Amino acid sequence: MDASRTASSPKPDRFERRRTRTRRALIGAARQILAEQGGAAVSIQQIAEQADVGFGTFYNHFETKDALFDAAVADALEEYGQLLDAATGDVADPAERFAANIRLTLVLAATHPEITGILRLRGMQHIHASDGLGPRALRDLEHGRAAGRFRIDDPVLVLSAIGGAVLGLLELHTVKRLDEGDGTRMAELLLRMLGLPDEDAHEVATRPLPALDQ
Amino acid sequence: MDASRTASSPKPDRFERRRTRTRRALIGAARQILAEQGGAAVSIQQIAEQADVGFGTFYNHFETKDALFDAAVADALEEYGQLLDAATGDVADPAERFAANIRLTLVLAATHPEITGILRLRGMQHIHASDGLGPRALRDLEHGRAAGRFRIDDPVLVLSAIGGAVLGLLELHTVKRLDEGDGTRMAELLLRMLGLPDEDAHEVATRPLPALDQ
Repeated sequence: MDASRTASSPKPDRFERRRTRTRRALIGAARQILAEQGGAAVSIQQIAEQADVGFGTFYNHFETKDALFDAAVADALEEYGQLLDAATGDVADPAERFAANIRLTLVLAATHPEITGILRLRGMQHIHASDGLGPRALRDLEHGRAAGRFRIDDPVLVLSAIGGAVLGLLELHTVKRLDEGDGTRMAELLLRMLGLPDEDAHEVATRPLPALDQ
Repeated sequence: MDASRTASSPKPDRFERRRTRTRRALIGAARQILAEQGGAAVSIQQIAEQADVGFGTFYNHFETKDALFDAAVADALEEYGQLLDAATGDVADPAERFAANIRLTLVLAATHPEITGILRLRGMQHIHASDGLGPRALRDLEHGRAAGRFRIDDPVLVLSAIGGAVLGLLELHTVKRLDEGDGTRMAELLLRMLGLPDEDAHEVATRPLPALDQ
């Protein structure tokens, strides 16, 4: 940044900072609403009130309610992906890393209910999005295939199965209280699907789980 | 039925028939709306108009819009389950029957778009319902386990993975045109998950597919 320009005209920066703050407030309000009730029935007026910004201000940032919700879902899933990357990025074995990411889903359901609610209610339409969880999972699948760990032909089709299965797990979690053991069993099932022999899948899925940064 | 009673008072039967017809009309309208747009934004007035019944009549049958939508989803998924049972009920090998049911998902997406749209948009919350597809899939999983074909410990957890994976497949179908080969590949992936060795999963998933009654 050019310091002399900042000194002579601070306003654009302050304006930008305020603009960013307002956008964050709208996305934060939308994330909360999405996690609680899926967002279908809420009005722009209600979102603006929850974000503590004026009704007209909304339209300086988003054209429609759906555009805000899309941005809010993308924001939440990107944060989710960063949490997983931070926890499991150092795991060398692609199969172990994959299993750890699956197992952490139920850990995050307890520690991060908002982000998990959004994943459960809106994740399906974002599996094949260009950011968030889908591209990270696809990266891990390709990596495991290249390393000879996964025997799969069509990573995108496999991603649709894995993404759906994880959402199915979160749905089951709303019907019946699950624990970390269920996450481990799900990881084992999905490792089998990726071509690991049963004993290998079981061994990899039950290795010590990396901790999440809180 | 007591014929003399029918002869002396035909009205209750005619009333019942009309009542059933009206209920079917409401469910039919709700199914169409659900398949097209998920149903969140529609009013009871609009549903009643589409069903060609009076606004007040709605409340003789359903207490809320959500109650109607639940009944409509259950109705659609029950019909879906009956279509699958009719097509694959005679297949003796539980693994082959399971694979055929998965593969028919993409066939039904082409021949039965309404029912498939409802499954895609609302199926997740009905995986563990008491009728429709969930209990049928659970029956097939238990059957395959008892026959020594599937090596699974927790059929309900497995059901959540399979239900999610099928919905993930239908979601991918909205992003990218899939064909019956993709259904076969998905069936093969899920058979691996159920514990079939890779070669066995491939062989079972590629057997001749039973035809659907149209």
